[in-house]
Amino acid sequence: MNKNSSNTMALAPNTSSKRETVCIFGTGDFGRALGHKMIQSGYPVVFGSRSTQTSSLIPKGAEVFSHAEAAQKAAIIIIAIQRQHYDFLIPLAEILRGKVLVDVSNNVKINQYPESNAEYLAQLVPGAKVVKAFNTVSAWALQSGTLDASRQVFVCGDDMEAKHMVMAIVRALGLTPVDRGSLLAAQEIENYPLQLFPMWKFPILLSLGLTAFFFFYCLARDVIYPYVYENKDFSFFIAISIPNRICPILALILLALVYLPGVLAAIIQLYRGTKYRRFPDWLDKWMLCRKQLGLVALAFASLHVLYTLIIPIRFFVRWRISSRIVSQALNNKTEPLNTTNAWLSDSYLALGILGFFLFVLLGITSLPSISNNVNWREFRFVQSKLGYLTLILCTAHTLVYGGNRFLSPSSYRWYLPNAYMLSLIVPCIVLVVKFVLIFPCLDKPLTRIRQGWERNPQYSE
Amino acid sequence: MNKNSSNTMALAPNTSSKRETVCIFGTGDFGRALGHKMIQSGYPVVFGSRSTQTSSLIPKGAEVFSHAEAAQKAAIIIIAIQRQHYDFLIPLAEILRGKVLVDVSNNVKINQYPESNAEYLAQLVPGAKVVKAFNTVSAWALQSGTLDASRQVFVCGDDMEAKHMVMAIVRALGLTPVDRGSLLAAQEIENYPLQLFPMWKFPILLSLGLTAFFFFYCLARDVIYPYVYENKDFSFFIAISIPNRICPILALILLALVYLPGVLAAIIQLYRGTKYRRFPDWLDKWMLCRKQLGLVALAFASLHVLYTLIIPIRFFVRWRISSRIVSQALNNKTEPLNTTNAWLSDSYLALGILGFFLFVLLGITSLPSISNNVNWREFRFVQSKLGYLTLILCTAHTLVYGGNRFLSPSSYRWYLPNAYMLSLIVPCIVLVVKFVLIFPCLDKPLTRIRQGWERNPQYSE
Amino acid sequence: MNKNSSNTMALAPNTSSKRETVCIFGTGDFGRALGHKMIQSGYPVVFGSRSTQTSSLIPKGAEVFSHAEAAQKAAIIIIAIQRQHYDFLIPLAEILRGKVLVDVSNNVKINQYPESNAEYLAQLVPGAKVVKAFNTVSAWALQSGTLDASRQVFVCGDDMEAKHMVMAIVRALGLTPVDRGSLLAAQEIENYPLQLFPMWKFPILLSLGLTAFFFFYCLARDVIYPYVYENKDFSFFIAISIPNRICPILALILLALVYLPGVLAAIIQLYRGTKYRRFPDWLDKWMLCRKQLGLVALAFASLHVLYTLIIPIRFFVRWRISSRIVSQALNNKTEPLNTTNAWLSDSYLALGILGFFLFVLLGITSLPSISNNVNWREFRFVQSKLGYLTLILCTAHTLVYGGNRFLSPSSYRWYLPNAYMLSLIVPCIVLVVKFVLIFPCLDKPLTRIRQGWERNPQYSE
Repeated sequence: MNKNSSNTMALAPNTSSKRETVCIFGTGDFGRALGHKMIQSGYPVVFGSRSTQTSSLIPKGAEVFSHAEAAQKAAIIIIAIQRQHYDFLIPLAEILRGKVLVDVSNNVKINQYPESNAEYLAQLVPGAKVVKAFNTVSAWALQSGTLDASRQVFVCGDDMEAKHMVMAIVRALGLTPVDRGSLLAAQEIENYPLQLFPMWKFPILLSLGLTAFFFFYCLARDVIYPYVYENKDFSFFIAISIPNRICPILALILLALVYLPGVLAAIIQLYRGTKYRRFPDWLDKWMLCRKQLGLVALAFASLHVLYTLIIPIRFFVRWRISSRIVSQALNNKTEPLNTTNAWLSDSYLALGILGFFLFVLLGITSLPSISNNVNWREFRFVQSKLGYLTLILCTAHTLVYGGNRFLSPSSYRWYLPNAYMLSLIVPCIVLVVKFVLIFPCLDKPLTRIRQGWERNPQYSE
Repeated sequence: MNKNSSNTMALAPNTSSKRETVCIFGTGDFGRALGHKMIQSGYPVVFGSRSTQTSSLIPKGAEVFSHAEAAQKAAIIIIAIQRQHYDFLIPLAEILRGKVLVDVSNNVKINQYPESNAEYLAQLVPGAKVVKAFNTVSAWALQSGTLDASRQVFVCGDDMEAKHMVMAIVRALGLTPVDRGSLLAAQEIENYPLQLFPMWKFPILLSLGLTAFFFFYCLARDVIYPYVYENKDFSFFIAISIPNRICPILALILLALVYLPGVLAAIIQLYRGTKYRRFPDWLDKWMLCRKQLGLVALAFASLHVLYTLIIPIRFFVRWRISSRIVSQALNNKTEPLNTTNAWLSDSYLALGILGFFLFVLLGITSLPSISNNVNWREFRFVQSKLGYLTLILCTAHTLVYGGNRFLSPSSYRWYLPNAYMLSLIVPCIVLVVKFVLIFPCLDKPLTRIRQGWERNPQYSE
Repeated sequence: MNKNSSNTMALAPNTSSKRETVCIFGTGDFGRALGHKMIQSGYPVVFGSRSTQTSSLIPKGAEVFSHAEAAQKAAIIIIAIQRQHYDFLIPLAEILRGKVLVDVSNNVKINQYPESNAEYLAQLVPGAKVVKAFNTVSAWALQSGTLDASRQVFVCGDDMEAKHMVMAIVRALGLTPVDRGSLLAAQEIENYPLQLFPMWKFPILLSLGLTAFFFFYCLARDVIYPYVYENKDFSFFIAISIPNRICPILALILLALVYLPGVLAAIIQLYRGTKYRRFPDWLDKWMLCRKQLGLVALAFASLHVLYTLIIPIRFFVRWRISSRIVSQALNNKTEPLNTTNAWLSDSYLALGILGFFLFVLLGITSLPSISNNVNWREFRFVQSKLGYLTLILCTAHTLVYGGNRFLSPSSYRWYLPNAYMLSLIVPCIVLVVKFVLIFPCLDKPLTRIRQGWERNPQYSE
């Protein structure tokens, strides 16, 4: 038995029998890109088009027919046409009865129409089995084969078998189908590719605002004040010194803002005596973007660490140290070690290191692949216990940094306190309120409320 | 054709026909939370309860009936009741015949009962199709909508169709169903939410013990000894200097302990001449937590890096350097560059940097989303080849750090050697044994044993 | 009702009825390991073998029969035999009719045979339902239970039901089945375990070559030149100084090489006036490994950061600074602060910090679990907008580092410019061309071309 030749012969008809013909309505960019990719993956492809003239754009190997003719050649029809032209399908309803129609369309705006394009299609052609798919993939990526980003294709539809047929095609194209349930999910799937980090908007705008405020605050205190009163040019502070003041301040404030809504929610629940009433909208939204707030805080903390570690390499710092040593040498004096200062400096740095370390740990556990692998008990342990420990360490780091400068009048310029003092307000409030809330007289009723107990249960008639 | 109005009309009945009524037995916290969420997602919900009095706690839109009445209204019944009260379902057996019963219960302890709650339920109501689901989600998270953590809902059950119906509900609630197979998996699913990092217990306890030991060891040598004999107050070493001794020591020891069990296993297999006998229990357990040991080691290594990089900013270090320079200047002498010291210092730092870099690489590849994307060959290449290279670099880093101080008597205080010398024992043993094991006279039989060969094969009768 | 005893009784027959007998052909290492694991998971296992003598190697609880006898006892038969011995199955064709045959085989080389082993098996036994599975799991891992790496088992096959039966077994063994579609995917699944980072080969070889070149370049300039002309021994530069020159150079060049193919592709498309012609092969391959190029660049950038931060701890640097200060003190002079130098040093460091920060952000978003959670719009925003910003910042960092040394003749040794000047060539070309390409007169036609427009559309007959 000549293995190779016989095998190949036996294989060929086998293979072609597996890939059923796919019909694509529409010869636009996305339709052609999809057709191209399907032909590459071994599917016979026919295009349905108003003009049946074969243009050079049609992928090689595909044929072009009228819509009716093309539809009769395949069980699966991909509708690569814009929603506003779906009307032309109504006269084809008889031919499309029982066929699988794949809606690949996208809109220009989120929630552009009252119902999703796929549901609209299902109403226009009631006899067909509509499946939503492929809208999350870009034509350009299909064309060029550079699918660096998500290979996930969300699929939804009411007919289980039709969905499985489409998912088989998705897999054959080298993409990963993700079943999102019934056609009701189509709206969400159609909105998905239009999003641009929706949960990040508030944290990023907030941090931009705070950054601008603290930048001008520090500019006034650290650059303009010495220039006006001491005629010193410290304008180069803009590059590193001022960013290295802003970053830790923002990291601390944003980290505290992650834990503030939880504290507020507890107060509201204690006051209302029930958990069965909705929080105000702003609190709900705030709670939903806590993860993003925390990650922005972590970004600022990381920048603070980099800016701090780079300090001894700075020209200005080297100049200041060497000129101080030279003047010491010229004055012929040696300072003894000030143990208090050594303690302050070392404990301040150690608190910062430990706080940052825990902060990074929190960040790592919020990676999707890790948070999917921990259960709720573990997640709550990390995010709540470790989270508060991080907040305590970082607040302590800032307090010790202040050291004995807190009330010294020399640290006020134009009656403005040091910027780091402003950053302590929110975290201290959060920590104090949280400390009060863990007293048993408040913790016990809160726990009971969260388990479903109500202070004033009202029975309806 | 007025598109919007006609569409909306056509859509409305369509939608309601898709969501079938769900019945929930039990009006406790979890039952109510689940009911609330389901109503939000468009499911008609009826509650089955002993008292049919509608309390204000029942989510708006749900109705309360007796158990029998409620069960008749739905094909899917969620049993949100504790296991010890399951008995009341026995008289309802006839009504429940053919229904899908969803067991959402959790226990208080791991393996509390001989069989899982879901299997117990299946025995009590043999005619029903039991599906285990939703037990990994917290009522509080469902209620507040803040599903930051895992959205995964493990589902298992013997009836494929029943499982698919439940998974469709899970998806409609915005959660991700994960099929875990037959009802036999229920025990595991019920234990899952009770775990608190089970694999991390041993590595963390071990490192806490070692940390305590080395803390007091270094305290004695570096703080108490100078205080007693030289009357110097170095108590501030507790903040940074001593942690920065403990961290690298623990990182190195724990990293070596990751590779020790593999070496021990090879010795046992060579001695026994077969791979078909189980390892002792302690070795099995040790091998299973190697990843966690390695990650704890990486955490200590990262802390060591932070503590080291912060050195030039410390008050004490700046004071020591400046007082040294001042005394040099006052004594009017300039030291020439000692090239040997420059070599030692630079190669010690370079080895540490490269070792840490590879260590971080190992840590990144152990992220679930990355280790799922490499095959066994690649995983073994990274974890074994790169792992040993990391161990070699880190051991060399410590050896060069010792430099020529190794045998100098001045480094012994109270006959105690420097702490880093203790940390070299385990890694050196591992590296030496591994080096011996790669000699062909040992490597060849080992490879054959691992491919299934036996030195003394015993044929049973 | 005595709960425990009755339950256990009721449970036992229930369980055994769920796990159907599995037959394994072949008593080699992998067959035995799989059998062992299946017995542990509660499956009755029979082995089919030429010799029915029970050896001690056969897992306890399994029975050995002739192939024909064993096949009759089970609906699922695992073929744990090498491809070249598949012939013996031909006479068994009648017995195997309708059975599920699981092909677990692997090859020694990629694409060793014209068709996959599983497809070959399907041709030999046309009446059986062939499923490919388990080939991505190692026998050693199954045996030892240490499944640290991927638990994914790729499954493919043409018969949906047969596939589901095999996936149920996979799940029962504690592994994760991944449906890869029809048997056509078998070739890819069989090649998968043989790969060793195929996409990384080019980036790693390229960076090794560049590293070697720049190492000798810097060695000549920084070690040999001073030794020859100034008789100074700077050989210790090999440990840190020279690596810290090579790392940033490679990071910058490789980062620029990530964006060069995109720029080239745009030029080719503008020149051709269409996107419907394939790029040259080398460009296609280059585009496919951009992610890997970028990650290697990030690795070099991280090493550069570590090497830089360690600078103030180096013995040589401390010696140089202290000897400079001592000589200043001895010469009795204090330098005033040079604000220009302070500006240059600070902005150079700040640019580096920001560039590295964005670079790390790019790296994090390329983690599979994160890139799967962003849509195309977000991915393109991060990888294109943030990516170019990173390239601009890193190029500016290098330019400012050069400062006013650029044209100074003293920085040329043996007519060789400073190494960092060479590293600026590629990034500057990329940035200039990209800058030209965003002019409307070029950007508009390019956008149209990418949306499917053609300058010279050719209609075929």
